[in-house]
Amino acid sequence: MQYPEPIAKLIDNYTKLPGIGPKTATRLAFYTLGMDNEDVESFSKSLISAKKDLTFCDTCGMITEKDMNPCIICRDKSRNQGTVFVVENSRDVMAMENTRDYHGLYHVLNGVISPSAGTGPEDINLPSLVRRLSEHEEIKEVIVGTNANAEGEATAMYLARLLKPAGIKVTRLAHGLSVGSDIDYADELTLIKAVQGRTEL
Amino acid sequence: MQYPEPIAKLIDNYTKLPGIGPKTATRLAFYTLGMDNEDVESFSKSLISAKKDLTFCDTCGMITEKDMNPCIICRDKSRNQGTVFVVENSRDVMAMENTRDYHGLYHVLNGVISPSAGTGPEDINLPSLVRRLSEHEEIKEVIVGTNANAEGEATAMYLARLLKPAGIKVTRLAHGLSVGSDIDYADELTLIKAVQGRTEL
Repeated sequence: MQYPEPIAKLIDNYTKLPGIGPKTATRLAFYTLGMDNEDVESFSKSLISAKKDLTFCDTCGMITEKDMNPCIICRDKSRNQGTVFVVENSRDVMAMENTRDYHGLYHVLNGVISPSAGTGPEDINLPSLVRRLSEHEEIKEVIVGTNANAEGEATAMYLARLLKPAGIKVTRLAHGLSVGSDIDYADELTLIKAVQGRTEL
Repeated sequence: MQYPEPIAKLIDNYTKLPGIGPKTATRLAFYTLGMDNEDVESFSKSLISAKKDLTFCDTCGMITEKDMNPCIICRDKSRNQGTVFVVENSRDVMAMENTRDYHGLYHVLNGVISPSAGTGPEDINLPSLVRRLSEHEEIKEVIVGTNANAEGEATAMYLARLLKPAGIKVTRLAHGLSVGSDIDYADELTLIKAVQGRTEL
């Protein structure tokens, strides 16, 4: 027996989302039936709107509204124009901005170099970074804030080799213990990196 | 810093779903941006359609299309009209139908008696069951298939006390070991029930 078509279709659509299997999708679909009309309409509209009204900033690759391109950060001339923080995606920009501790510019790769997935430097928002650096000589430092995994490291290494010869300072975020964490819970690699990067008190 | 409004709104809408917190909602929203236009439109439409085109069967309370009321099971006169299987929700009907082993009718309570949540017999689809039984004297047995937890048991007890005096046979699904399960992994209550309900070989 099949579910009535309208709910079967909704279950099917929920299943397309990452990490949501048939059981969860069914639970979500039935939950949707019990939601207020307004909430469901708002949800339905926001799906279309997010897809239609958003784009990537022509300068940095960050997600932005179509009528705000370049994005709000690239437009802000009060920010330090000499530093570019390179991240994998727009969420990383938000995470960094929420620290309120960085006041330079960003460059969002919208991906990462991954030989195993067949993603090379040309497949991500990297050529535009090279162009940006050549057009803006005031940029003196590139901070590589890709994730601390194999692909993030590979991308960082690639960037360093590419940009250093052009006289740009390329730095990488520090590895070490999370603030507030216990040493005996840290993995070995993190501990080794924390010792290597130890600072004088 | 805030996300651009279209994605902030989508994140907000995802957060309204059960079991989805802000982090997952953000991940889903960004995933949505990368989906095909068609898929997003289908998703958007199916939300509205599920809400608009579905209703509960006037007879049994099961989810059904608005132009198919009573539902497809209630219309099927080839099914055994003498047995009603009472379940908590429409998903339970699907689970039972998928066994292809039951050929009677259903009654969906769309809830369960729960004194702690303040849900009484009148708040669920129970009065309609009583009406249905009085109108259809051919119904001889009610199988109570509510969940095997405190609320499901309470609902089962209530139904038994309500319907037995009217001469209707009220039965409950058997408790015992899951097929293929190990005895040493079964909880104590299940083991006790399995012994109580032991069958002769």
